[in-house]
Amino acid sequence: MGLDKPLLNDISQAVKGHLNLITDVSGVRVGQVTIDDGDVHTGVTAILPHPGNLFREKVPAASYVINGFGKSVGLVQIDELGTIETPILLTNTFGVGTAINALTRRLLAENPEIGDTTSTVNPIVAECNDGDVSNIRRMRLTEAAVNQALDTVGRQFLEGAVGAGRGMMCYDLKGGIGSSSRLVTVDRQHRYTVGSLVMTNYGFLDDLVINGLPIGKPLARLIAADKTKEENGSIITILATDAPLNARQLKRLAKRATVGITRTGGFIGNGSGEIVFAFSTTNLIHHFSKNQFDVVTRFNDNQIDLFFRATAAAVDEAVLSSLVHATSIVDRKGRRRLSLIDAAEQLKEEQPEYTEMVKKVFNQLGVKSS
Amino acid sequence: MGLDKPLLNDISQAVKGHLNLITDVSGVRVGQVTIDDGDVHTGVTAILPHPGNLFREKVPAASYVINGFGKSVGLVQIDELGTIETPILLTNTFGVGTAINALTRRLLAENPEIGDTTSTVNPIVAECNDGDVSNIRRMRLTEAAVNQALDTVGRQFLEGAVGAGRGMMCYDLKGGIGSSSRLVTVDRQHRYTVGSLVMTNYGFLDDLVINGLPIGKPLARLIAADKTKEENGSIITILATDAPLNARQLKRLAKRATVGITRTGGFIGNGSGEIVFAFSTTNLIHHFSKNQFDVVTRFNDNQIDLFFRATAAAVDEAVLSSLVHATSIVDRKGRRRLSLIDAAEQLKEEQPEYTEMVKKVFNQLGVKSS
Amino acid sequence: MGLDKPLLNDISQAVKGHLNLITDVSGVRVGQVTIDDGDVHTGVTAILPHPGNLFREKVPAASYVINGFGKSVGLVQIDELGTIETPILLTNTFGVGTAINALTRRLLAENPEIGDTTSTVNPIVAECNDGDVSNIRRMRLTEAAVNQALDTVGRQFLEGAVGAGRGMMCYDLKGGIGSSSRLVTVDRQHRYTVGSLVMTNYGFLDDLVINGLPIGKPLARLIAADKTKEENGSIITILATDAPLNARQLKRLAKRATVGITRTGGFIGNGSGEIVFAFSTTNLIHHFSKNQFDVVTRFNDNQIDLFFRATAAAVDEAVLSSLVHATSIVDRKGRRRLSLIDAAEQLKEEQPEYTEMVKKVFNQLGVKSS
Amino acid sequence: MGLDKPLLNDISQAVKGHLNLITDVSGVRVGQVTIDDGDVHTGVTAILPHPGNLFREKVPAASYVINGFGKSVGLVQIDELGTIETPILLTNTFGVGTAINALTRRLLAENPEIGDTTSTVNPIVAECNDGDVSNIRRMRLTEAAVNQALDTVGRQFLEGAVGAGRGMMCYDLKGGIGSSSRLVTVDRQHRYTVGSLVMTNYGFLDDLVINGLPIGKPLARLIAADKTKEENGSIITILATDAPLNARQLKRLAKRATVGITRTGGFIGNGSGEIVFAFSTTNLIHHFSKNQFDVVTRFNDNQIDLFFRATAAAVDEAVLSSLVHATSIVDRKGRRRLSLIDAAEQLKEEQPEYTEMVKKVFNQLGVKSS
Repeated sequence: MGLDKPLLNDISQAVKGHLNLITDVSGVRVGQVTIDDGDVHTGVTAILPHPGNLFREKVPAASYVINGFGKSVGLVQIDELGTIETPILLTNTFGVGTAINALTRRLLAENPEIGDTTSTVNPIVAECNDGDVSNIRRMRLTEAAVNQALDTVGRQFLEGAVGAGRGMMCYDLKGGIGSSSRLVTVDRQHRYTVGSLVMTNYGFLDDLVINGLPIGKPLARLIAADKTKEENGSIITILATDAPLNARQLKRLAKRATVGITRTGGFIGNGSGEIVFAFSTTNLIHHFSKNQFDVVTRFNDNQIDLFFRATAAAVDEAVLSSLVHATSIVDRKGRRRLSLIDAAEQLKEEQPEYTEMVKKVFNQLGVKSS
Repeated sequence: MGLDKPLLNDISQAVKGHLNLITDVSGVRVGQVTIDDGDVHTGVTAILPHPGNLFREKVPAASYVINGFGKSVGLVQIDELGTIETPILLTNTFGVGTAINALTRRLLAENPEIGDTTSTVNPIVAECNDGDVSNIRRMRLTEAAVNQALDTVGRQFLEGAVGAGRGMMCYDLKGGIGSSSRLVTVDRQHRYTVGSLVMTNYGFLDDLVINGLPIGKPLARLIAADKTKEENGSIITILATDAPLNARQLKRLAKRATVGITRTGGFIGNGSGEIVFAFSTTNLIHHFSKNQFDVVTRFNDNQIDLFFRATAAAVDEAVLSSLVHATSIVDRKGRRRLSLIDAAEQLKEEQPEYTEMVKKVFNQLGVKSS
Repeated sequence: MGLDKPLLNDISQAVKGHLNLITDVSGVRVGQVTIDDGDVHTGVTAILPHPGNLFREKVPAASYVINGFGKSVGLVQIDELGTIETPILLTNTFGVGTAINALTRRLLAENPEIGDTTSTVNPIVAECNDGDVSNIRRMRLTEAAVNQALDTVGRQFLEGAVGAGRGMMCYDLKGGIGSSSRLVTVDRQHRYTVGSLVMTNYGFLDDLVINGLPIGKPLARLIAADKTKEENGSIITILATDAPLNARQLKRLAKRATVGITRTGGFIGNGSGEIVFAFSTTNLIHHFSKNQFDVVTRFNDNQIDLFFRATAAAVDEAVLSSLVHATSIVDRKGRRRLSLIDAAEQLKEEQPEYTEMVKKVFNQLGVKSS
Repeated sequence: MGLDKPLLNDISQAVKGHLNLITDVSGVRVGQVTIDDGDVHTGVTAILPHPGNLFREKVPAASYVINGFGKSVGLVQIDELGTIETPILLTNTFGVGTAINALTRRLLAENPEIGDTTSTVNPIVAECNDGDVSNIRRMRLTEAAVNQALDTVGRQFLEGAVGAGRGMMCYDLKGGIGSSSRLVTVDRQHRYTVGSLVMTNYGFLDDLVINGLPIGKPLARLIAADKTKEENGSIITILATDAPLNARQLKRLAKRATVGITRTGGFIGNGSGEIVFAFSTTNLIHHFSKNQFDVVTRFNDNQIDLFFRATAAAVDEAVLSSLVHATSIVDRKGRRRLSLIDAAEQLKEEQPEYTEMVKKVFNQLGVKSS
């Protein structure tokens, strides 16, 4: 549900959507399955761009690689054709193969023409490495779990250490799934929604700054985050909108996720897979259309800044929301990995000189302290 | 073994390698498994850049997308880091998920550090859609087949309708795997090898021209190739060299595959996934190196044209070699799909006015006619 | 006027336009000024996408870099916004600065808002290095010449060693300006035009093959083309169409120029600046529009192959047309630089064994031999 | 000289260089000429990568386009070859043509081979639109001014409203030239320098946040910055280092400028030309080398995060430094355009409730208040 309060410097100049989730974009649905099995803590998160047959009614789309140390799939075809034709799956790095297989089988079942009388299909799967928390080597994701996530999509969904975000760490704190939305009003009459969903697995605690408060430094000393480790995290961002943006414009939008990602202290580390997917639910592309052209609305680039601002704010907030909603977890080696809230409570308790800063951070994030 | 004879207009100004295969590049090995099972005609082809531990000793690499209607995976990370750290697998479009899983499991077994104490691994899998010939919807590729291909790599390997090329069609004729190599001599003393391996599944017969002979047109009339079908083919190209080219230079090399691919009549169709991977076996990158830098040779771009020419010729010949070595096959619907040679023999027989042209083509390709 | 005869393997499956020039695309105009002044042989060629105010009514556009050893300007903004808002100028490498200044001053005069109440303007200037023939170091292009070219645009224009093509060499023969067009019929009812204009300054004579005839090799021996020189040429391609292609689709179109450029023997040399600009005269973008969106036609990518084929053929023919229309010239060092026709006539005369090949080439190109 | 004090959340984990300027990178020099002439307030800033002959000894380089609403030139060839072979010039948008001409003439004079016996040369010119302050339509830059800037380069140079930055506005305050540097220590023994120089002309005052203090909002109300204007600014960033980074790595470095640019409130607006150039002074490329290869050091990407952090911090600080060093100016329409310091002093005076915030900002920036 994103954050209750506005960000101190919300660059969007826009109000939040009803749920303050990506599903505020009409038609978008999210489903998740969390897998806890011994030393495995992982899962899958599915985003449906619209409720119809995605292969037959593709959405205009773009992807953007902020930093490419990652294994997400489907980008080549998105880049060429400017469309997405399957649900988008998020999971762990070694679940990509199984996610592709599950998505392919599902699309084949739904569309008997695929691979027979028409072309094949381009599965979209994005990943982060949750191996710090979960025994990723067990390759525990199943096609059944993927299908369950797809079968249980809805407008409401949980954030934090759930679904594909189950084992993710963000700024050395528990990360996971976060989401947010912004309403954009153009020309005082047209209202559009921009929604974001992130899977956060990046950043160093030392660098964390929340609305200008450098809370990361004392927290880092407190929990002795391993500062010598190489950044091997990632962040996946999904952007959805009902505004009639085309593939070129969606790529521009996707690039602005960078602003939201770095605002809390990210610097786009070498080992980070930072990938963005953006789609519009307007001006769908019909797979079996025999027409040489259709008639669409083309959005004026001169007015696109409203969407750029909304994207920056919605991603910034989604990152924070993943931190706020995450709960502490015991990792594959038995270590307790703290959530932001638990870590801050502990800081307040053990080092009273930071009580004020923690209170400010909690107040800003809408967190009720104990 | 590529072609016996030189291409009429071999732009390489270079001699062929000993085997005239990609494996002329020292250390490179190829293994293949062909799968024929009822209406399934598919397989897997594996290319090993060098015989050591690829994860620990990565090769400098680049990928290039000529046209992105394709589902090949691994390109994002190659683009960012300029390395390949696994074998390269070729298979059919719906085998990608299983190929990723097999490759991941194999690398995990070989490297206990992956996903535990070090980062994950980036599988390279390229694909074409063989659904015209094979029942691709059965998703018949197994991890066992992938492992068998990887276990049986060698310097010698078959071309034509084998391995991943089993069900591929090129210029409406039987396509598949083709390979070739060129020796490049720089400064009269340094001899390097450029090798190519292609999986051909693209083109319209009407467009086929072999060394200036428009043999495609009469062949197209003969076998009534379905000219109204959309191009849904692809061509995957693998380039290997022992020259000390870095990632930027290898990307430039990869782009020159276009020249070889289009010379026989390709025009980079909308529905074609034309992806190139290029690697060098020199100046390896050590995964666990603690050194801040190493010392490498940097090739002078001013002398790179020799490699561009060799690439154009080696790819051009590899395409023709895939056609020459392919054999006719009965497809998933029971139709006989002719090889170039069988089709040309039939043309000669049924339309004697083309006897001369067929002879010229056969002579050029080094084919002994009946 | 392009070539009189069809190319032997015209891949376009389309008929030629009325003039067989880029100006067959309705509204497109071309103007040229040739500068011969002592050892300077250069000039400027201007392409107007439409007759109106280009800054106020921008054309959808894309650029594509085949090989980037070049100094063309304007690509950054085309890539971001997908528009062209000025005439396109071709000239020599050291004329770019002056061409920018002339274009800027002209646009400022036509649009008092530029740089005052609205944004600046993005001049499009493309170049090749004619320094082999012309004393390029004299930087002889003037703003007056640019304006004269812009003031004298029309539907009819000369090809060959004129305008910006005055000093260009192609395949070691006299190159320059070439143009061609194709009519594309979609769904049997909609007729569109694709036009190409090239400035040819690339290639090695040894590699030249015309419709399968390797005429380049004997010609190279005859005129002893300096084969050791580095490729320092380039080819600029301008594509125009009235089909409703958007920026993403125009970029795909631009990429297909590669097919036409390499068909005669090009291999995309290291030192070559091969840049393509493509624009559509449909769905213009209005600079001062206050509307948040407009309504446009969106072309179906499934039917785009017809345009890809037309592009390949129109560029292939434009290259040949530049060779056919070029006349021999005395270069800055007093050497006679032969046109294709003069060189071939000489070959026929001095080496009668090539008489047959020359006749075939001439016949193919529609050239009447002496 | 950058800022006296460390940034509150300096992500670099590094100390500043001796001068805290880009010229801390050994060999780099900067020269500037400011032009005030009636309603013209513009200039030119020149960066010399090293003191030798740049054409003969090129620097490894990369460029990166954050947002491409800009007219900078030279990027095509940098992208292809990974080198810069001229000084880098910054100026206003309509000065680009003259800057190219001046640079070309200068390089021609220094290198008689250019355009005669060897290739041409690729001028690097970057620009922002200073038309808000200066009458840009007068196209007032002269080649003499460019030469003067190049003739007077040194290690010491002014920041703020000088040189090419004379007429630039940043966050609706007076912007201009800013610079900073960081020392990076690798493996406790090797010390490298990363230097940044920016020309700031972007941002909305409302968005400005300095180290978590949202000083922009009260300032915006105070000076009634025109919030309805479209963003038509830009920011050019030059990065220099003596670390042995190659072109691929320098491109990665260039991308991290985004982090520094957005930290104060930028969101990469639609109308902003945000271009980055990065070069290394190590492993130079010799133009006339006849060797097929040379031996170079290759930096380990695993250790590159230190440079990414240094880049983010050095660019962040350079932006602030441009604001701190800028002085108020009377623009082309006679309006006084305030510097950050003058605006903040005025805020403090007129709205005492912000005294505390202004003091904190000044203290952070090392500014001594009146």
